[in-house]
Amino acid sequence: MTDAEKPIELTDLLDTNDLVGMRLWLAEHQPYEIADALARLPPERAAVPFRLLDKDRELEVFEELDPGQQQAILAGLRDSAFRELLEKMEPDDRARLLGEAPAKIATKALAGLSPAERRMTAALLGYPENSVGRFMTPDTVILHRDLTVARALEVVRAKGAEAETVYVLPVVDNGRRLSGMVQLSDLVTSAPDTLLKDLVDVFTPRVQATGPAEDAARLMQEANLVALPVVDSEERYVGLLTFDDALELIEAADSEDIARQAGAQPIQGHYAAVGVLRLARARAVWLLLLIVASTLTVNVMQGFEATLERVTALALFVPMLTGTGGNVGSQSATAVVRALAVGEVRLRDLHRVVWKESRVGLLLGVMLATIALVIGSLLVGTGIAAVVALSVVAICAWASIIGSTMPLLARRVGVDPAVVSAPLVSTLVDATGLLIYFSVARVVLGA
Amino acid sequence: MTDAEKPIELTDLLDTNDLVGMRLWLAEHQPYEIADALARLPPERAAVPFRLLDKDRELEVFEELDPGQQQAILAGLRDSAFRELLEKMEPDDRARLLGEAPAKIATKALAGLSPAERRMTAALLGYPENSVGRFMTPDTVILHRDLTVARALEVVRAKGAEAETVYVLPVVDNGRRLSGMVQLSDLVTSAPDTLLKDLVDVFTPRVQATGPAEDAARLMQEANLVALPVVDSEERYVGLLTFDDALELIEAADSEDIARQAGAQPIQGHYAAVGVLRLARARAVWLLLLIVASTLTVNVMQGFEATLERVTALALFVPMLTGTGGNVGSQSATAVVRALAVGEVRLRDLHRVVWKESRVGLLLGVMLATIALVIGSLLVGTGIAAVVALSVVAICAWASIIGSTMPLLARRVGVDPAVVSAPLVSTLVDATGLLIYFSVARVVLGA
Repeated sequence: MTDAEKPIELTDLLDTNDLVGMRLWLAEHQPYEIADALARLPPERAAVPFRLLDKDRELEVFEELDPGQQQAILAGLRDSAFRELLEKMEPDDRARLLGEAPAKIATKALAGLSPAERRMTAALLGYPENSVGRFMTPDTVILHRDLTVARALEVVRAKGAEAETVYVLPVVDNGRRLSGMVQLSDLVTSAPDTLLKDLVDVFTPRVQATGPAEDAARLMQEANLVALPVVDSEERYVGLLTFDDALELIEAADSEDIARQAGAQPIQGHYAAVGVLRLARARAVWLLLLIVASTLTVNVMQGFEATLERVTALALFVPMLTGTGGNVGSQSATAVVRALAVGEVRLRDLHRVVWKESRVGLLLGVMLATIALVIGSLLVGTGIAAVVALSVVAICAWASIIGSTMPLLARRVGVDPAVVSAPLVSTLVDATGLLIYFSVARVVLGA
Repeated sequence: MTDAEKPIELTDLLDTNDLVGMRLWLAEHQPYEIADALARLPPERAAVPFRLLDKDRELEVFEELDPGQQQAILAGLRDSAFRELLEKMEPDDRARLLGEAPAKIATKALAGLSPAERRMTAALLGYPENSVGRFMTPDTVILHRDLTVARALEVVRAKGAEAETVYVLPVVDNGRRLSGMVQLSDLVTSAPDTLLKDLVDVFTPRVQATGPAEDAARLMQEANLVALPVVDSEERYVGLLTFDDALELIEAADSEDIARQAGAQPIQGHYAAVGVLRLARARAVWLLLLIVASTLTVNVMQGFEATLERVTALALFVPMLTGTGGNVGSQSATAVVRALAVGEVRLRDLHRVVWKESRVGLLLGVMLATIALVIGSLLVGTGIAAVVALSVVAICAWASIIGSTMPLLARRVGVDPAVVSAPLVSTLVDATGLLIYFSVARVVLGA
């Protein structure tokens, strides 16, 4: 890419402190593009361009940022601007921001809100982290099941402007219990004197406010729902989870799973804005555990040191064997973790899954052993090649069993299956694989 | 879980060929639940319960299945039922099914459609695979910008029932060029004589029908759009990408990336329904390449065989070193691949990303080296421990550089960055890491 083609970037304008250029850039971009550019900046730098935004676009940009960025920007605002911005936010976005803010800031922020907004936010904050309640919109139009379509449309006209969504509308009975949902398009296309109770879809799925948010988002994906009604333990309607929450939840959950699969803790915030220290910290925990665990491989090798001294050539194939075992085990683990995440595999499928994966591993092992036999024969001779090939078969089958069993066991004991990362499986398979290899060598070579 | 708690499963009813039980089960479940249960079955078995479904729920269940399952079910239907079902499908779902079906079936199916439906489907099939055009709905209400709100609502009432979505509506000019979008809720809440051209949001993002579908879905997530208008190269409106397409595209793209990250080819279809052979085939390609590539590690070890014979204890730490290098490299690669996928990192960030990752790697290397020094000193003595520790630092920094550079280079040459899998990075780092280790050993130990 030549310099002439390169678009002007917000960060370049910031570097030169070009305020006029920044205003121009902001005017030419959409709120979601501005939010994306702000998210790339280190949090403390994002406040400058944010303060240059028009008042009427401020909120839209702000709501697109993640809670960490939002906190940094709020910290750079005057008290009145801080209060004003917070007051205008959607209750669910506000609850998410305050839920992650230090208690002192959260208390101050809550105190500055109007009583109605404060009540709504406090209610959402009462739900557990990562529950549906933290992500839902309490602020929706609610229709009573005895209304006519004409009257319902009047209610939508009167209250719809403030609500986050009116595409689908909850219909309740006298006890505020959810009867079901009605589509705005059904209201528009039905006869005005139709009663809502004759129009309502009573089979719409619903979820509990205290249930896990990720599962609710996957349900919306499966059932193609633009909004999912949320109820309390008494089946009373309390809010709506909307499609944009579902999109965000699924993308965030997948990002977390992907990070965990590589043995890293998920980090919040934009990759470009996260510093070296935070990245290193997120990855260090598992690496430390795994290097300590890999002492096992040293122990196994020490146990066979006499064999190694007699047949040094055995050492040559150690990286190939540990590598192959790790790869096969990681593939099994990754497949099972993903199948669990999207609901294609459940806990009660344990036996079926392990049986399937062990056959896959055996099949792959036989195929890879053939290659290993050829490579080994060419490089060191048939005796050691046979040892390597036999070990490959056993290690691959074993790696698949380990890789598929561990995520399901993790789920059974209530741990996120995604912690069964590729590095964890590889490390475990390394030590056991070496044990297999040297045992086979002793038997076959009599060494 | 005891047997009493265990819910009745469709597969158990199928095993006993319990038709009455199946009918009951189908009546008690929602279409998306039925689709999920069918997706778990081997494709050839899904046709039996499907034929037991009520006519009016058939379509809804069918559209939730993936194209492979749909084909198997269609194959089990009589010609008239086959034609009827296909005729009722949404044009975008139908195009996706036929796009993946064998040419003979697709041609027969197209010929059986009514002229209007055939025209729409053929148009969608004209777009490249994985492009927006293949996923969009052409079948929407279109409003002219000179209409009043009252007239527009009449159009929605007249045509809305057939359209897939009326939440947001495209507004066009005389040349069918897209002016922008208007929300159904805005129509409902505006004065009846307002002109659409005064109401339309002209800043709504739009995408080209030939552009990549995944990018469009991520844009919908970023900009919180319930539907994204699609235009042709002349800015003429051609269809809508809806939120349910976006949810499906994001989940599918993430599943593919996750599979690729573990060195497996993505498989279509439900994990439970995919056979051992197909699973093995999807994983075999990379495993074969990688075991051949790992011959390099054998070569490197052979090159240092004299050193190994003099100091056998050096071999003990080979799995620990290759394991650690692989872990650090995979973490870097995984982080960069994900950041590229969600748009947090772009090609032009190459230098910044590699610089950041190499510092992370160095930092992690120093930390891990400390542990390695302790473990090594305890197990074999300080000389070899020093060699191991120095190698850990160098290997970790090097692994991060390899892991972060490769996905960006892949993107530059137009290859999906996700093919830079953890196993690929590990294998490359194994060979180079050993070269580092034995070179350090020679210098430090003079061996």
